[in-house]
This record gives sequence, structure tokens and C-alpha cells, in this order.
Amino acid sequence: MDGEGKVKAARRPRAETPRGFRDYFGAEVSERSAMLDAIAAVYHAHGFDPLETSAVETVEALGKFLPDVDRPNAGVFAWQDEGGDWLALRYDLTAPLARVVAQFRADLPQPYRRYAMGPVWRNEKPGPGRFRQFWQCDADTVGAASVAADAEIVAMLAEALEAAGIARGDYRLRINNRKVLNGVMEAAGVLDPADPARFAAERGVVLRAIDKLDRLGEEGVRALLGAGRRDESGDFTPGAGLSGDQAAIVMGFLAAKGSDGAVTLARLAGLVGSSSTGAEGVAELAEIAALLGARGIGEDRAEIDPSVVRGLGYYTGPVCEAELTFEVLDEKGRPRQFGSVAGGGRYDDLVRRFTGQSVPATGVSIGVDRLYAALAAKGRAGQGRAGGPVVVTVMDRDRMADYFAMAAELRAAGIRAEVYLGNPRNFGNQLRYADRRAAPVAVIQGSDEAARGVVTLKDLVLGARIAEGASLEEWKARPAQQEVGRAGLVAAVRAMLSGR
Amino acid sequence: MDGEGKVKAARRPRAETPRGFRDYFGAEVSERSAMLDAIAAVYHAHGFDPLETSAVETVEALGKFLPDVDRPNAGVFAWQDEGGDWLALRYDLTAPLARVVAQFRADLPQPYRRYAMGPVWRNEKPGPGRFRQFWQCDADTVGAASVAADAEIVAMLAEALEAAGIARGDYRLRINNRKVLNGVMEAAGVLDPADPARFAAERGVVLRAIDKLDRLGEEGVRALLGAGRRDESGDFTPGAGLSGDQAAIVMGFLAAKGSDGAVTLARLAGLVGSSSTGAEGVAELAEIAALLGARGIGEDRAEIDPSVVRGLGYYTGPVCEAELTFEVLDEKGRPRQFGSVAGGGRYDDLVRRFTGQSVPATGVSIGVDRLYAALAAKGRAGQGRAGGPVVVTVMDRDRMADYFAMAAELRAAGIRAEVYLGNPRNFGNQLRYADRRAAPVAVIQGSDEAARGVVTLKDLVLGARIAEGASLEEWKARPAQQEVGRAGLVAAVRAMLSGR
Repeated sequence: MDGEGKVKAARRPRAETPRGFRDYFGAEVSERSAMLDAIAAVYHAHGFDPLETSAVETVEALGKFLPDVDRPNAGVFAWQDEGGDWLALRYDLTAPLARVVAQFRADLPQPYRRYAMGPVWRNEKPGPGRFRQFWQCDADTVGAASVAADAEIVAMLAEALEAAGIARGDYRLRINNRKVLNGVMEAAGVLDPADPARFAAERGVVLRAIDKLDRLGEEGVRALLGAGRRDESGDFTPGAGLSGDQAAIVMGFLAAKGSDGAVTLARLAGLVGSSSTGAEGVAELAEIAALLGARGIGEDRAEIDPSVVRGLGYYTGPVCEAELTFEVLDEKGRPRQFGSVAGGGRYDDLVRRFTGQSVPATGVSIGVDRLYAALAAKGRAGQGRAGGPVVVTVMDRDRMADYFAMAAELRAAGIRAEVYLGNPRNFGNQLRYADRRAAPVAVIQGSDEAARGVVTLKDLVLGARIAEGASLEEWKARPAQQEVGRAGLVAAVRAMLSGR
Repeated sequence: MDGEGKVKAARRPRAETPRGFRDYFGAEVSERSAMLDAIAAVYHAHGFDPLETSAVETVEALGKFLPDVDRPNAGVFAWQDEGGDWLALRYDLTAPLARVVAQFRADLPQPYRRYAMGPVWRNEKPGPGRFRQFWQCDADTVGAASVAADAEIVAMLAEALEAAGIARGDYRLRINNRKVLNGVMEAAGVLDPADPARFAAERGVVLRAIDKLDRLGEEGVRALLGAGRRDESGDFTPGAGLSGDQAAIVMGFLAAKGSDGAVTLARLAGLVGSSSTGAEGVAELAEIAALLGARGIGEDRAEIDPSVVRGLGYYTGPVCEAELTFEVLDEKGRPRQFGSVAGGGRYDDLVRRFTGQSVPATGVSIGVDRLYAALAAKGRAGQGRAGGPVVVTVMDRDRMADYFAMAAELRAAGIRAEVYLGNPRNFGNQLRYADRRAAPVAVIQGSDEAARGVVTLKDLVLGARIAEGASLEEWKARPAQQEVGRAGLVAAVRAMLSGR
């Protein structure tokens, strides 16, 4: 561990994050943190308590409940502990919640409302914009069977998005219900309530098919409901073998969205026929819509939309997805809708893995990095935040205490400020440093200025605007420079900052 | 992935965190977050930028630079990636910083000031109060060779502790310098500047011995400097073989603290004799003291103390340790000083691993969990924070929309509020729930009250004070209950809350 002369022989390590991992710098960290604080305040006001679980869980406790059926091979990062236990990084915030509820049920309030925010890890193939560590922000209510709990989650999500900076009109919450789908399955003859194991294989194919609606379109899903589908590469995926009439019922569910919620609900009631589960699902959707309406959340913000199918295989009751409706440019410069930033629903079986008892639960998960990207796309990130620090330059390295005193005075007045700490010999380097730091003002005091009791202030905002094009000479010649008495330093800097 | 009937056959998993890991609940999460926000504000004001690195690094990039020489077997959690790379969880925030500086040096300002906060992981034997995941909060300046950078870190640490809620007088910063120790080694004849490899083994023994000063005391260290030491179990540790005169020089260093900084510096100057490195170290300590003094940080807050030896083997220049000086009771009820909560110093060799070029760096790391424990011990955590939510009870489950409207009105007035979401049948359960949530007020509106346009408010603060001793009957009989008009709900709750 002695620092002396140990490294010379070793091959130099690569200075890289592992593939699929990244770092976050500067404003992105603090702006994301401010966004999460705003969301946390909404959750907290609703009576939700924060919970921060361990990042590491036993593989046994985590289980294999990754919600995305599109990627059944999706994995976790796992390793064997010295004691023989297999440990893993959490892949979401829901599985740890189920473990916490099972472990601490005697000590937690019933129902237990909690929010959580932090990184999760997925051992998946990374791709553009797809990382193996990313942040989630979840809110869940455990122990409440009532659909009022689902409605609360949806309403709170709307408030959270607005608190984060997404304007009303820029988002839409789409609500569906797994129970309605189950009713549709009954009506289509692939679910027998008296014998749930029957047709399980067919239902699996149906679920996987409708989960692919976004990607394959109606035609592709219809093929998978029937005989099967051959893709462009020639690969054939066997279908569920439904008849045309049966498939029409399922397709009718996906396309049941009407001109308003009442029309949609009436259509769904027709589609589920005599299924009591289906009728229950339709009634739940009606109640959620009524509770949202009573809270002033109309169909312009939250609507029943049976084409929301993502997660229907995972959840057991109402599901919700938050979409951002404004357009951004994709990597090829084409406009496209920003899309989903949050999703959730009711999952009543997660705690049963541990305790054998079914515990009703409902919640939502916000994709933090996507939401932050949306704010950045709207130009809302970075608004109203302090920029770079005032940089106090060093003209005379024996007078560091004086320069530190200037910076401390500025900070005491609420102005971010620092002293240049590189080698002060080359003054051009100091100005380039200030520029790179996005400093609004540089403070300069050489020995002659010190003797006269003055400091020179350079307004760098204009310089930043002139930008990379200007030469150092032009930049130095700018008139935006003034000499003020040392005692007037703080007042003069403040005037420069507010004068922008 | 179909939720139906999959779990019945499987053995139930244990609902437990892995050994050495823990969860954080409720107020501890939000109070720790508030504490970190206060520290971040100090760092940000000083011109430091936030950095959040990936939790996962390649083992190659992390290296094996765990700072604590007492535990050379201290390990990391590591696993092999599918591509063959070994990945690991970061064990501190400094090694990732070195990787970032090497990876992004062209894009970072020079010098680069950054702060970071987050969990780190150590694959060590857990013990009471010793976890395998814990939070650190670091600030570092990379690329500044000047001792002014070290002084800034020390001064900023004092401000950060005060911002976190540690009162002046409750902490002491102790400063030492590895260069002075090296000078002492020269004077003691175990370091030859002309041949640094000579006596390396002896110096290793000396470093390990003085790092154990806290545990073994002067006598134990003296034995290890000389012939060696036999501990109570009979195990013998060979010593460095220093003569009595040589050992006296090293022991003199550890005991050199005088009545004030000037006395200490004079003693150190004598001990290092003609060593130029030693003289440089003494001059650096003098300059740090002068810069701190100029900032109004006197010896009551930061003092030169050569007995600070923790980390001397790891760092290359000035080192600093922050101790909390107030007493707490240990697990056996005996008073003891709270002790160290932060430490740091100059480490000029970390980036060289990657680039071959030595990059000067200095920084400090705060043990977040220990600092939070200190605030809790002083009763400062939880001050001024909102407690439990107002709980709107459910008397009539068909009127959920009305109850939600009441909670929303309260929240709009800045009052944390929630609707009871468990089964409303047993009203006693609702009151017990409100009690467990530390609710200050319960709102009650049955159908008769709704018909009359009133609500009943129950003040639960007094009830909480009567505490577990009181029966539900006594509790119900308390007079702290009032009926108010529905339109006056918010005003009446606010009056109850402020009347406390």
C-alpha cells in the first residue's frame, strides 16, 4: 500500500466505464436531483414515506420477475458470496419492496405507502441510449385492495409529472385493465374460469402477441392470434390458433377506444360478454375515471385506452402508462412523439412468493433518465439554475489568502465563487479556465491594484456569447471590464450578475 | 411470466437482506437527503461540480487501492461479465474519480473540482454497525499542486459540517502531513532520498505500526518500531528493528503536538533535521494554518496534530481528519467521544496508474452514515421536519371522491394528507393506522355529518403523547375533538397544527 514506485512495471489499465455504463456530470446531476426532489415532494405530500433498500439482494429474494416479457433472457448481475449465497444487483425497485414488506410486515403501517428512487441494474445487451444502470423513481401502495388506491397512483403521477416540469397538455395518462383482457379471453373462449389451467398455452401466445402491438401493428398481432406469423427474415412464429371470430374479439379489445370514456366503457362491456371478471374490470375502469374526474383530472390528461398493452402480462388489475405527446427529433432527424416515461399497475402476487399470502399492491415507476431527457428536449432543464462560479484569478501567488477572502465574501452573499488553483503563471490559462467553467465574472487583482485598494472585474457573459469564434485578443479588448474599490467587490459583482 | 398459479410448488424464498446489508426507512432517508443537500450546497458554492459515476467499474480500472492498511484482505464485490471482463462495485468514490479524470481529461476543466455522493460497497466481514454498503460524500480537487487546494478542502469541510448541523465546538479538524513523516524517516535513518528503495521493508513496518497508534497505544507502537511485539494471544509481530534513538525520533513525531500550532511546527522542524522533504512538509502545514487563519478558522476548529496517523500510508502530502468531540454512550452505556466522521488528504499518484503522468489531487470523504448518526445522537436529525400526514378516514366507502377532495385541499394548502386506503369496515383499525403514521389530525365525516355539511377533526398529537399506555377507550374519550363546517376544514386543521 506504500505509494512509492509500485506502478511502473504494471500494464496500464484502460480508463473506461464498463460497456453499457456511463457517468453523469455537473448540471445533469443537480438538475436530475432537483427533478427528483420535486417528485418526492408530491409523493411525500400524499402520505408516501421514502424507502431506500439495499442495492444488493439475494438472488432468491429477487426472483425472476422482470416485467418485460419481450426479453425473457433479460438478466441480473449476480455473483456468489463467500458464504455460498448468490447475490445480485436489484433490477427494479418493486422486487425489493416485496421483500421489505414480507420482512418487516409487523412494523409497517397497513396499508404501506412508499416511494423510492435510485439506480437499478440490468445485465442486458447495451445499445444506443440503453444502459445497464439507470434510475427509477417508484411509488407504491401495498395492502390496499381498493381501486381508490389505483386512482390515487394515477392522479399522483399526473401531479408528479407537472411538478417535474412537464406542462399540462404535454403528457397523457392511458389506463387499461388486465381484468378486462381476462374477460375478453373468456368471451373469446381461451379462458375457462372453472379450469384456469386450460388454454394456458394459447393465452401465453395471445399475451405475447398483444404486447407486440406497438412493434408489429394490427396485422402482425392478428396473424399471431391465428395461424402464426412469418417475419421479413423468414422466421415463423406459431400463433395461438384462434378462429377469426375469436381473434376479432381480442382485436376488438385493442381497438375499443371510443370518442370518450363512456363510449369506450360501453364497448368494453359488450366485448367481455357474460364474464364476471371482465365486468369487474370495466367497473374498476369506470370508478377510476370517476375518481380522477372528481379530482379535476379530465380525459385530456387521463383516458381509458385499451390499446395500452405493455405490462398486461405482468400486472393483475388496472394498468397505466404515461406518454409525453410532444415531438422530438430521432437520431435520423425525423420528428416522432417522445413516448412513454412511466408505467405501472396493480400486481397482487409479488409478496405471496415470500409469505404464501396474497397482498394487494399497486404502483408506478418513472423512468428517470427518460423524463430528464424529455425536460432537456423541452429546454426546461437548466432553467433558473446558477451557472458557473465567479472565478477569482491569481496574479500574485503569495497573496492566496486575499484571493480566498474575496471568494468567501462572494459566497457569503450567495454568489458561487472560487479561486483559480492551477499554476497561475500563465494568465491566459486562467481566463481560458474561467471560460470553460462558464464563469460570469472574473476577478483580477495584481499587486499594483492591491496597493491602490481596487479590483478589476471582467464580465465574461458577453465573451461567452461571442463564443469560440473570437480570438483571445478581441476578447481581451472587450470593454466589459471595470475597476472598483475592494470594499465594493460584492456589490459590483452582484450588479454585473443581475444586469445580464 | 403469466402471474397465474406459478408459485405454489416452489420453496418460499427468505425475505431478508443479504448479511451486512440494510434498508433505510422514512425520516432517515429524507433527513439524510436533506443533510447531503446542505453539504452539496457548500461544495457547489465553492465552485465544485457534481459527478455521479457508474456504480460498476472494471476491476482493472478500480485497482486495489483500498485506503485502510489495517485490512489488506478487504475486498470488492466482483463478477465476470459475459464478455470476459471482470466487473466490480466501486469500493470508494476516489478510484472512480481517477478513472474519470484519465478518461475525460480533455473535456474537464483544469483544475477539476468535483463532489460526489452515493453508496459504496466493501466485501468485508460485517459487524455491529459495520455494513457492506454505506454512503460516502466526497469533494476533491484534481490538477492543483498548490497547498492552497489542501487548505480549501479543510476549510470547506468545516463549513460542510456546520451546514449539516454540527455546531462549532462539536468538531475538530486535525491536520498532519505525510512529507513531515518522510522527513522524520530520513532523520531516523530509514529513508535515504538518494536510494528510495533502501529500507522499504523497515518503512513498511513503521507505517503499519504508527497506523495502529489508536489501538496499541504508545508502548505497542514503540515495541513494533524496535524488536517487535507479542500480543495477549501470544502472537509475535516482528518489529522494524530501529534503535532506541531512531525510534525516539518517530515517537517524537507522533507526540509533537504542542500548546499551539507555532510550538508544534517548531518541534516538527527540529525532528526532520536536515531533510528537505521534511522541511517542505512543515512549511506546507504552516501555510495551511495561515490560510485557515485568514479565513477565520482558528486552532479551536482546525489544528496541526502529528498524532493523526490514519491514512498516512496512503496519502502523499497533507492529511486531515474530522473528529466530533462530544460524547455519546457506547453499546455498553459508557460515555466515549463520538470520533472520526471524515478524512482525506493529498494523493498525487492515483491517475498515474492510467496515464503514466502524475496528477496532483487532494480531497476529503465524509462518512455519511456516521455523520447522520452523530446528528441523531445530538437530537438534531428530525428537527423542523413535517411529521406524519393528516389522515382522512373512510366512513362510507361510496364517498371516496369526497375524502380524496378533502386530502387534496389540505395538500394544496401545504399540509401533508392522505386518505385511509385499507379496508374501512373496522374504524378502530383506521385510528390505529393514523396512530402508527404519527398523524397529527384525523378527519372524520360520516353520512350524517356529510348531510349536515360538517367534518369532525380529532387532534392526535395529545394521543401520541399519552402513548402506548392508554387504552383505546381512554383515547376515544379525549376531548380534543371538534366539529367544523366542511368549508372550514383547511383553516381548522391548520389551526390545530400550529396550536401544538
